[in-house]
Amino acid sequence: MKSRIALLDKILERKYADAFLITSPRSVQHLCGYFFNFETGPSPFHLIPAALVVLPALGAYLVIADNESGQLTDLNPEIMLVPYKSYSYDKPLEYGKHFKNCIFELVKSKGRRSLTIGIEPESLPAFISISLREKYPDIEFVDITADVQDLRLIKDDDELNMIRAATRLCDIGQAAITKHARTGISELDLFSMVRWEIESAAGRRVPMMADLVSGTRTGEGGGNPSTRVMNPRDLVMSDLTPCLDGYWGDTCSTIVLGKPTAGQQELFNKIKDTLEMGIKALKPGVRACDIDSLMRKQLAPMGEYSHHSGHGVGLAYHEEPRIVPYNETELRPNMVIALEPGIYNRDFGIRLEHLAVITENGSEVISKFDHFFEIGG
Amino acid sequence: MKSRIALLDKILERKYADAFLITSPRSVQHLCGYFFNFETGPSPFHLIPAALVVLPALGAYLVIADNESGQLTDLNPEIMLVPYKSYSYDKPLEYGKHFKNCIFELVKSKGRRSLTIGIEPESLPAFISISLREKYPDIEFVDITADVQDLRLIKDDDELNMIRAATRLCDIGQAAITKHARTGISELDLFSMVRWEIESAAGRRVPMMADLVSGTRTGEGGGNPSTRVMNPRDLVMSDLTPCLDGYWGDTCSTIVLGKPTAGQQELFNKIKDTLEMGIKALKPGVRACDIDSLMRKQLAPMGEYSHHSGHGVGLAYHEEPRIVPYNETELRPNMVIALEPGIYNRDFGIRLEHLAVITENGSEVISKFDHFFEIGG
Repeated sequence: MKSRIALLDKILERKYADAFLITSPRSVQHLCGYFFNFETGPSPFHLIPAALVVLPALGAYLVIADNESGQLTDLNPEIMLVPYKSYSYDKPLEYGKHFKNCIFELVKSKGRRSLTIGIEPESLPAFISISLREKYPDIEFVDITADVQDLRLIKDDDELNMIRAATRLCDIGQAAITKHARTGISELDLFSMVRWEIESAAGRRVPMMADLVSGTRTGEGGGNPSTRVMNPRDLVMSDLTPCLDGYWGDTCSTIVLGKPTAGQQELFNKIKDTLEMGIKALKPGVRACDIDSLMRKQLAPMGEYSHHSGHGVGLAYHEEPRIVPYNETELRPNMVIALEPGIYNRDFGIRLEHLAVITENGSEVISKFDHFFEIGG
Repeated sequence: MKSRIALLDKILERKYADAFLITSPRSVQHLCGYFFNFETGPSPFHLIPAALVVLPALGAYLVIADNESGQLTDLNPEIMLVPYKSYSYDKPLEYGKHFKNCIFELVKSKGRRSLTIGIEPESLPAFISISLREKYPDIEFVDITADVQDLRLIKDDDELNMIRAATRLCDIGQAAITKHARTGISELDLFSMVRWEIESAAGRRVPMMADLVSGTRTGEGGGNPSTRVMNPRDLVMSDLTPCLDGYWGDTCSTIVLGKPTAGQQELFNKIKDTLEMGIKALKPGVRACDIDSLMRKQLAPMGEYSHHSGHGVGLAYHEEPRIVPYNETELRPNMVIALEPGIYNRDFGIRLEHLAVITENGSEVISKFDHFFEIGG
């Protein structure tokens, strides 16, 4: 578990704070490595998975439910664990009070009456901010949401390894699609087989978002797998987005069960060319909006797609830099970018997606499967 | 989608509020029927799934991301939809601002300078509470967390139907366990088969919490399915907790692959007796702590379990009334209670769980499978 606490110094250069109170699960994981598995919903025994309190020059503290803290065996020694009583059966549940008290004790150690605290107000519970203001009427809250998010733009080697591992699961999933997709199987059964192969490879449960649609449903661009049974010559669109230990992979394929029509084949070829053109254009110094514009123009004769041309991937399946018309951000080495051009008609749709890392001179595609339309091919 | 907005009148009788701002996903679903599927984690395009703003005598408004609101086709006409711009590709993401503005517009319609707002501070983002205080310096926040939660204690007929449907998935899962569990299969493969049968029955993906452990791992009381391969005479513990459209089912079985030892059989029998005794004692007027005490004492010769004897089930897999030593709450008709006595030793553990609804005179067990130890039996 890599600690990146020192990255917060960049924020301190711009904004004064006596303390940082980091509460969004993605920021907490980025800065100290703790991943809370969201797959079964919010726990009935905490407000938020954890809070990271950083007191500049003093220390970094992870305030976490005691029944979660046991999983943190290899926590970086730079981070001090502050477990609070979460679940109990012999006393009433008071996890909110215990959680708050731990945060208050840490903030108090700054020993000031007037405090300035850097917060992420979108994820900080009002329960904490209201109590802090009652205790310290002169408290000032400084919004550091964008600053903390910016720290995640450029991935370090540990993060790239985790994204590569999640993307390997995408490759396994896409191979399972070509292996198992056939006339007579339902989308849901195909999905179950794909997930089984992915979880077998991972050796554990893997949270996973998936568009898995067939036939005319591909014209809608995506959706959850349903009981729809596949027919001969159906298209099958599989946008597989697994999460391994907090980091996501993201790829999309579209295949045809049998022979495509000439129009389908032409569209597939054009989208595949567009994806390849986009990938070739990825390199440091190019602006995100230029990649977007290049791909949109290339596909314009075939139609429009009313979504992004791509997006960053990491601790979120959709993050900066977004590959969209307004975004003038210049690409830099170690950004991770998914590109996913698509066209959706009344009867069918096609989308193809690969995941790439920006390198010193260009990019490396880290999803290792090939896009075949006819899966026999 | 049942609307239960009128239930809030009970809170108004005790606490004054110009508006209620309901933000916890479970409360939002309970009051207006909207279920946000948490299975793939928090969306990158919203702060919280939705906010329900209730202006007493004026109306109830569901403030929800525009790309989610399409799913709400059969929303109760009592609820007015207020969609805000969430995802966009041609403009920067400003979902936080749009979300906040919708809430402000609604609150403003009360036309007062000094406002009292009932909130759930554990789930309300500080982003909203801080902005509200800036706009209305005299604003008063009233904590209605416990009041709103109390409304969920007694289930109405629609809720009971949803819990029954989720519990039917538990039955299917437990049948799949006895069908597929065998020497040589891994916990993870068994889990995949169980989930496949559950999702096939549901016709869609089903979020699911599951303890699925075998051999000495049963002595730990639970855990995620691993790659551990099952051996002859292993115990297999399966605590299956699926979530169907927001409502949970919850049951647990323990089986043995082959012949149990005499000690294992004795323990199984005693736990099964304890569960049956607990179920027989469930009826209106009995206190939760009395059920807990009865079961704990019955099992005391065999050991102790350092967890609850049971808990409520509904929109959370663990909710009130908790069946624990301190809880003097009296049971009432239409409460839904899981009972789950267990004993965990160094080498193995056994837990058995059923789900029951309190009736006028006693209880009805709504999980319909039987606990067999030897699965051939």
